[in-house]
Amino acid sequence: MNSLKKHIKEVKDFPRKGVVFKDLTPLLNTPKAVQSCLEKIVDSIGSTKVNKVVAMEARGFFFGTLIAQRLVAGFVPVRKLGKLPGATISREYELEYGTDFLEIHRDAISPGDKVLIHDDVLATGGTAAAVCAMVEELGGEIVQCNFILELDFLTGRKKIEKYPVYSVLHY
Amino acid sequence: MNSLKKHIKEVKDFPRKGVVFKDLTPLLNTPKAVQSCLEKIVDSIGSTKVNKVVAMEARGFFFGTLIAQRLVAGFVPVRKLGKLPGATISREYELEYGTDFLEIHRDAISPGDKVLIHDDVLATGGTAAAVCAMVEELGGEIVQCNFILELDFLTGRKKIEKYPVYSVLHY
Repeated sequence: MNSLKKHIKEVKDFPRKGVVFKDLTPLLNTPKAVQSCLEKIVDSIGSTKVNKVVAMEARGFFFGTLIAQRLVAGFVPVRKLGKLPGATISREYELEYGTDFLEIHRDAISPGDKVLIHDDVLATGGTAAAVCAMVEELGGEIVQCNFILELDFLTGRKKIEKYPVYSVLHY
Repeated sequence: MNSLKKHIKEVKDFPRKGVVFKDLTPLLNTPKAVQSCLEKIVDSIGSTKVNKVVAMEARGFFFGTLIAQRLVAGFVPVRKLGKLPGATISREYELEYGTDFLEIHRDAISPGDKVLIHDDVLATGGTAAAVCAMVEELGGEIVQCNFILELDFLTGRKKIEKYPVYSVLHY
């Protein structure tokens, strides 16, 4: 077992019955484990040029700014509807029941930007696919989508299969 | 004027009429400005020992993990009600109309921890005061509260005057 997994707490029946939630907060509370995750992500990028890191509210922000700092790239938050004050574009994405919207500032990505997408968890891939679509609408080129952990059995990777995908941990 | 202020965009009438919102996203999109903010925060802490950084959902997460990494401290998120899967304590805090709750994991802070509190903006101080109360309930010792920007006219500093307070920018 990857030794980082000991810092992920599995919580049964959260947020609802039948789901085993993977809680990353013990990992965040362990500086060496955070550093190790960050190094693995940076290694996976190699010498690929990245000038923007786009991360999803709220748990994507934990590692999003760390990755951006390490790559000396701009950090761009994707937020829920109504949270960003400037001109935005938005995309609908699927939830278990119904849909919701994500937004990004129009001026946050310029045509030709080399963009890395980050979120904490790759589950069904609906959120990641929506974010990729917004970044491409703004002219960005997606160089990688990465995640701290991936729930392989949900096959979310298929929804973003045209991009390089890297996850630190697999479940 | 502090040269970092050129990266803060003032947005009139957001989120509602009469408010001038200070948008930090252009700063986040500028790696040098992020690094400069981080250095100022680290300088303000000096040689004070810190082993936990507690930051508030969602915008506190942008710099929270960067500060924690730099100080080789654990990172602890404070979240809105129902988002944390483990055993929590919660505190009510005042909004403009009514109140809401913030939560922290009980096991995230141990008695004697030296805790730094971080959020993006110090406004009325209600959120910061609620977070300080939770950290102290868990036995943590607050060594500093810091913010990227402080709205001096709202006098939020008074609500947390028993702790050292540092803000990178003042408005």
